[in-house]
Amino acid sequence: MILTVTLNPSVDYVVRVDKLNEGGLNRTNDTAFFAGGKGINVSQVLKELGIHSTATGFTGGFSGHFIEQSLDDKEITADFIHVEEPSRINIKLKTEQETEINAAGPAISETDVEALFELIGRYGEGDILVLAGSIPESVPKKLYGLLAKKAHDLGMKIVIDAEKSLLEPALTTPLHFIKPNHKELSGYVGEKINTIEEAVKHGRQFYNHHDIEYLMISMAEKGAILIHRDEVYVAEPPAGNLVNSVGAGDSSVAGFLAGLERDLTINDALALSMACGASTAFSEGLATINDIQHYQPLVNIRRSEK
Amino acid sequence: MILTVTLNPSVDYVVRVDKLNEGGLNRTNDTAFFAGGKGINVSQVLKELGIHSTATGFTGGFSGHFIEQSLDDKEITADFIHVEEPSRINIKLKTEQETEINAAGPAISETDVEALFELIGRYGEGDILVLAGSIPESVPKKLYGLLAKKAHDLGMKIVIDAEKSLLEPALTTPLHFIKPNHKELSGYVGEKINTIEEAVKHGRQFYNHHDIEYLMISMAEKGAILIHRDEVYVAEPPAGNLVNSVGAGDSSVAGFLAGLERDLTINDALALSMACGASTAFSEGLATINDIQHYQPLVNIRRSEK
Repeated sequence: MILTVTLNPSVDYVVRVDKLNEGGLNRTNDTAFFAGGKGINVSQVLKELGIHSTATGFTGGFSGHFIEQSLDDKEITADFIHVEEPSRINIKLKTEQETEINAAGPAISETDVEALFELIGRYGEGDILVLAGSIPESVPKKLYGLLAKKAHDLGMKIVIDAEKSLLEPALTTPLHFIKPNHKELSGYVGEKINTIEEAVKHGRQFYNHHDIEYLMISMAEKGAILIHRDEVYVAEPPAGNLVNSVGAGDSSVAGFLAGLERDLTINDALALSMACGASTAFSEGLATINDIQHYQPLVNIRRSEK
Repeated sequence: MILTVTLNPSVDYVVRVDKLNEGGLNRTNDTAFFAGGKGINVSQVLKELGIHSTATGFTGGFSGHFIEQSLDDKEITADFIHVEEPSRINIKLKTEQETEINAAGPAISETDVEALFELIGRYGEGDILVLAGSIPESVPKKLYGLLAKKAHDLGMKIVIDAEKSLLEPALTTPLHFIKPNHKELSGYVGEKINTIEEAVKHGRQFYNHHDIEYLMISMAEKGAILIHRDEVYVAEPPAGNLVNSVGAGDSSVAGFLAGLERDLTINDALALSMACGASTAFSEGLATINDIQHYQPLVNIRRSEK
């Protein structure tokens, strides 16, 4: 079973206004609500690929109820810890440009965090824990590290997609799959990484110093490299017009995980991953199975010299 | 029993940001959610004055659930018709200035409207129907007229606080209490109304041509006049600093209604009405009983020459 964790999920409130009149009264042309959050995105793309997962994290109030209901409508199991304050509503204001207004989200108590550890305690050998995205201000910075350790002790495989300050405390635990981007990797190795060659070189160095099974380094439109044991794969994504990059990284995490779950070759899992990322980046919403199938054959993958 | 109707209630989402970076990512300092809508405001101020009412109208989805829960928390009976799409969320963006972004709200079907008529059909002689505020785009413009007629046939007393296009179709039905402002009254009589004297003159003319028991003409900081049978009362509001005018008119409707329910003299009911309006206008939220009691003795009321 795959368990995705979104510690600070959101309702994304998309609001279209012709032109914002600051200081005045504006009327919307169109509005829509979506459940947002990186772990939730992973669960949704996994579902699109026919793989069931359970989504957890912290939700509260009427907005939390919306998030759970949205997952339920998509037949994804929602098993969240309920906190007192409502889940945050993030505003995506679309005029001629896009303005984002992100809220902090509810306060999380120590008891809430304990409840999350208890929930993870119900999982074990062969299960996968996906930790994705930012964490609420009210929880300890090293929470991903603590959750990773707990999950490892239970025999779970651990996947993390998060910024350096959150991922770093988990690097003492063996990890199954992580996906820093080239800028984040640069923060670890203290060198600029702009080219595929630099990413391969520094990725290999980073990989050799940590207990990681699959290391993906994402480089936006340049694609990604994947390091697994002695092998390095370089994936070049399909061409397309960027519509919305939100969720593209989460989609590529879901694609690679799905590939591993299905026992695909690394080549095919990586192609699936890139296709999922592209499908999300080149459309308004998250990747759909039709788009994924369209882009998958258009991914180029080559082995790199070590 | 008093039944307040809010056809397009909202969740008011108050979002504080230091300075809006249009086209970029902003983070909120603070957020809060409130149930909004004119009929709902009337119900809340009535409750503050110790008078129970039931709130109805159309709600939908997770945001509608929030509205009902908010009323329930304040011990106001929520008896809404449930529609398919979620109730609207209106954004009150507070930077150095205040920017409002109001959404259209859910589509209302003919069946939904029929359900509202059925609900009103459960009321009768001695009950009061309060129709307040704007209506959704998807219902007929003459809906207040139709609801007023239905309520009158049931023996209910009808209170309307709405703009000319909504109030006008109801003017063929005997009305208990209406509260146009001087600009709206001006629209009926075709003359400019700037002074108390002009409001008295044209208010009297309007009153004599319609079947209305209490006609209040509100004039913002100049106060209000009230016409009842042969009498004209002029109320001068207490002095104070305007903090937030949203809901001030609804509060004065609630105050006057509460005065009538309590069999106060017209003088006292009018003073209560002005105190409720001022209490809301001079504070962040709706009128509180403490503020109302503070402002009530500071209202000046005089009889006007007819």
